[in-house]
Amino acid sequence: MNKERPKGERRGLVLVYTGDGKGKTTAALGLVLRALGRGFRPRIFQFMKHERAAFGEHRALEKLGVPIEGLGDGFSWRSRDLEKSAELARAGWQRAAAAIASGDWDLVVLDEVTYPLRFGWIPVTEVVETLRARPRHVHVVLTGRDAPAQLVALADTVTEMKKIKHAYDAGVPAQKGMEH
Amino acid sequence: MNKERPKGERRGLVLVYTGDGKGKTTAALGLVLRALGRGFRPRIFQFMKHERAAFGEHRALEKLGVPIEGLGDGFSWRSRDLEKSAELARAGWQRAAAAIASGDWDLVVLDEVTYPLRFGWIPVTEVVETLRARPRHVHVVLTGRDAPAQLVALADTVTEMKKIKHAYDAGVPAQKGMEH
Repeated sequence: MNKERPKGERRGLVLVYTGDGKGKTTAALGLVLRALGRGFRPRIFQFMKHERAAFGEHRALEKLGVPIEGLGDGFSWRSRDLEKSAELARAGWQRAAAAIASGDWDLVVLDEVTYPLRFGWIPVTEVVETLRARPRHVHVVLTGRDAPAQLVALADTVTEMKKIKHAYDAGVPAQKGMEH
Repeated sequence: MNKERPKGERRGLVLVYTGDGKGKTTAALGLVLRALGRGFRPRIFQFMKHERAAFGEHRALEKLGVPIEGLGDGFSWRSRDLEKSAELARAGWQRAAAAIASGDWDLVVLDEVTYPLRFGWIPVTEVVETLRARPRHVHVVLTGRDAPAQLVALADTVTEMKKIKHAYDAGVPAQKGMEH
């Protein structure tokens, strides 16, 4: 053991799950489960999910009393109204930023937030400032491909989920309860 | 959309979360949450956790009625009785293999199973045979560093969790509710 490491210091972490592999959102959900078990209050914002999304995780989290909000319009690459998608993302970010700043939530998940960042819909500097200014006990988990360098620099822990192989490439369709 | 892809085929997947980064166990826990939301029956075996382990996830899963079993002796690299650890792992594997074969569980998680495989405590071929012979609807998720090649070859989906940076390296101790 390194004696110089501080012992028992309690402080919120910034975690980033990025990369092209599976497991980014599910790892964030697993953290929510772990946090719940410790009596923490988690809250989830999903930037690319429709507000009426009802995947497996939504049903389970509802039962557990964890707020999970879809902030998007079910955006897809075929979306015809990108300006509307951008507006929704900006409005959603205001809600998420307020939740982080409030200190009312021990863990805030910003699921798939890297996409609106990459699209330029939300300024990276604004997210970085909000994370820097957050109450000390608040953990924030950010997920999505291609996490911006500023975010990686600020984060305490960054994992790249790298796709080695994926069932879909072999012709297996997405399985309910596993992928949605 | 590729028209040759089968639509709506329902079958159990083998998923592997490997690599040296954070998020392997939590991604498996997230899948459990998602599966629960779809009314599936998940069950978790943890090969390196003590049977009396009580981390955040154990408390939350207990509330959700998901069986989670530590099969190890809290093995660490300083363990003095490796033969006992090996016996525990083999006995644990028998329990897990029976759960997979029974078809009673829609999702079976073999958390940190790669370590007893790597140590030679459980034969890889035995695990591969059990996965091949499993009832068609059963999903199995295996986690841990250095997944054996035979396992990667058999799996439908494999993600490598790659460490980009970790809070611990910067002197931040493990945070309750996030890492345990």
